Amino acid sequence: MPVGTRGAVKSVTPAQVAEAGGPAVVLANTLHLFLQPGPELIAKHGGLHRFMGWRHSILTDSGGFQVFSLPGRQVSDGGVAFTDPRKERPRGGSGRIWFDAEESIRIQGLLGSDIAMCFDECVGPEATAAEAEAAVARTSAWADRCRHAHDRTDQLLFGIVQGFTHRHLRERSVEEIARLGFDGYAIGGVSVGEGTDLIRAVVDYTAPLLPRNRPRYLMGVGLPEDILASVAAGCDLFDCVIPARFGRGGTLFTRTGKLRVRDKRYRRDLLAPDTGCRCYTCATFTRAYLHHLFTIDEPLAATLATLHNLCFYQDLMAEIRAAIEAGDFASFRDRFLDRYLHRTGRRP
Amino acid sequence: MPVGTRGAVKSVTPAQVAEAGGPAVVLANTLHLFLQPGPELIAKHGGLHRFMGWRHSILTDSGGFQVFSLPGRQVSDGGVAFTDPRKERPRGGSGRIWFDAEESIRIQGLLGSDIAMCFDECVGPEATAAEAEAAVARTSAWADRCRHAHDRTDQLLFGIVQGFTHRHLRERSVEEIARLGFDGYAIGGVSVGEGTDLIRAVVDYTAPLLPRNRPRYLMGVGLPEDILASVAAGCDLFDCVIPARFGRGGTLFTRTGKLRVRDKRYRRDLLAPDTGCRCYTCATFTRAYLHHLFTIDEPLAATLATLHNLCFYQDLMAEIRAAIEAGDFASFRDRFLDRYLHRTGRRP
Repeated sequence: MPVGTRGAVKSVTPAQVAEAGGPAVVLANTLHLFLQPGPELIAKHGGLHRFMGWRHSILTDSGGFQVFSLPGRQVSDGGVAFTDPRKERPRGGSGRIWFDAEESIRIQGLLGSDIAMCFDECVGPEATAAEAEAAVARTSAWADRCRHAHDRTDQLLFGIVQGFTHRHLRERSVEEIARLGFDGYAIGGVSVGEGTDLIRAVVDYTAPLLPRNRPRYLMGVGLPEDILASVAAGCDLFDCVIPARFGRGGTLFTRTGKLRVRDKRYRRDLLAPDTGCRCYTCATFTRAYLHHLFTIDEPLAATLATLHNLCFYQDLMAEIRAAIEAGDFASFRDRFLDRYLHRTGRRP
Repeated sequence: MPVGTRGAVKSVTPAQVAEAGGPAVVLANTLHLFLQPGPELIAKHGGLHRFMGWRHSILTDSGGFQVFSLPGRQVSDGGVAFTDPRKERPRGGSGRIWFDAEESIRIQGLLGSDIAMCFDECVGPEATAAEAEAAVARTSAWADRCRHAHDRTDQLLFGIVQGFTHRHLRERSVEEIARLGFDGYAIGGVSVGEGTDLIRAVVDYTAPLLPRNRPRYLMGVGLPEDILASVAAGCDLFDCVIPARFGRGGTLFTRTGKLRVRDKRYRRDLLAPDTGCRCYTCATFTRAYLHHLFTIDEPLAATLATLHNLCFYQDLMAEIRAAIEAGDFASFRDRFLDRYLHRTGRRP
């Protein structure tokens, strides 16, 4: 997104993101904004909406996912200590920073997002079963502390379920987090290197356990086919770097599959990138023009490809909502995937 | 501009450039487009307007300025041979390319610009007086060849005056080019390393010699103060990389002078970059936000700064036009420069 944290939506203005359509929620990274430029400066602006020029909704993550990729981190029941990853460290000599549930909620309060997330412990494939179990226990204890620390009545607070790929841990986590009571529930700790099959399995058995009357948010997913499978499992809300990161790399999502526009075959292709798309990029430019921009490393290439991919995802979500309302989701999904995965005529 | 050649307007969409206001003409580099992606592909699109998604006017340079910075160039009365500067050379083994008056007009015809420029020989401070004189003679001969080669009735053709800083050569060049007869006249070969004082001197004695009933175009100029001085000398049309290049570097033009937004003093500054500006950047973001974007190397920084600078220049030109129409140019210029150069109270 336009606050410009790594891995996020780059190269586009908030106005362009809004134009890409739909009732989009932008995700902002609490930990990155904590380090740079600092939440106090953003609060002085009147919050993140004003700072980044975004009038629509903002969801802030808790820092839980980011903090676990930082150097020299030490996790305890109290919270996490880590080494400031910036080259210039204005916060003093040692460069050690403390982060915990109360600090995450305090910062998200200063940012003034519409949806705040509970601080959680996220583990990956390298964790033992015992470590994954300890992370679930901490995530529950921290969620309780977040609930008590949270005092902005104009901000929703979502709980996060952990447990990696262990079904009994996911079940325990859902039970503990749901018992605390939140405005919405997220499945965290997926898409951390466990592979597509395991993601699907976790989502398939976890999502149906979450409270039915609250939004279910699947964090860090995914490709169109993963989103469709997760919607089928009962998920409502998603965030992912894929549309923006793939766009910057020259991969455009289209109704008939991914299009790698740097490929020489598009050098003289006068078609719109996605002939079924209504976005500025597709209404204005050819594949040959985008190929040219990527060839000469013009920054506009990243902008135009990102704009298209954001529009593609917004359109996909709008079509999913319409199909659900029409009671037609399964057949919409099958039709979409037939075209997208080029498997027309050979149904699996 | 959005075709993305080096030194041009980068990081912004044609829609954003158009929104920056005014009856802008975009300049496209004939030589760069000749090399990549090739004029035939652009002609297949129906011309450059369609290729780059720009509905307003386009001026193409002749390649004369670019070709003289290329490696291994050999100039003769016939034209110029040079080594293909690209790493990948699809045009054959030797990598030698021939470029001349007829080729420049042929390519500009394929591009379909609204204004084409005559192929000229541009010399810099390293040229002897004899070399500068030879360049003037060649520029006249090539202009005559361009006039004969030019056959698009929907495209204007401008002549270019050379002569470096030699007054008698400039006078001779004006006489020879004006005698051939063109839709407009450009002063070329300035801003090539001769320094501001010499640029001003050349413009001051050359511009008034050009035909009064045709547009006078000063190529490659410049800063706001240079533009104001050149308008006073009688120039109508300008092109320059400065607004875009300075923007990418973090320098914003404002009514009260240049603002280097990377500077630490702006880290907590909640003012708009230019408090007198109507552009998207100034209407939406603070100096602190732009400072943040430049600090984290977010590509959006270049986009927002470029958009503001384009808007600043468009507004400056609109104000100049209004002042001329009101018969008030000299006093407008003095008032603008007093604020811009912070010299209020100490008139020179």
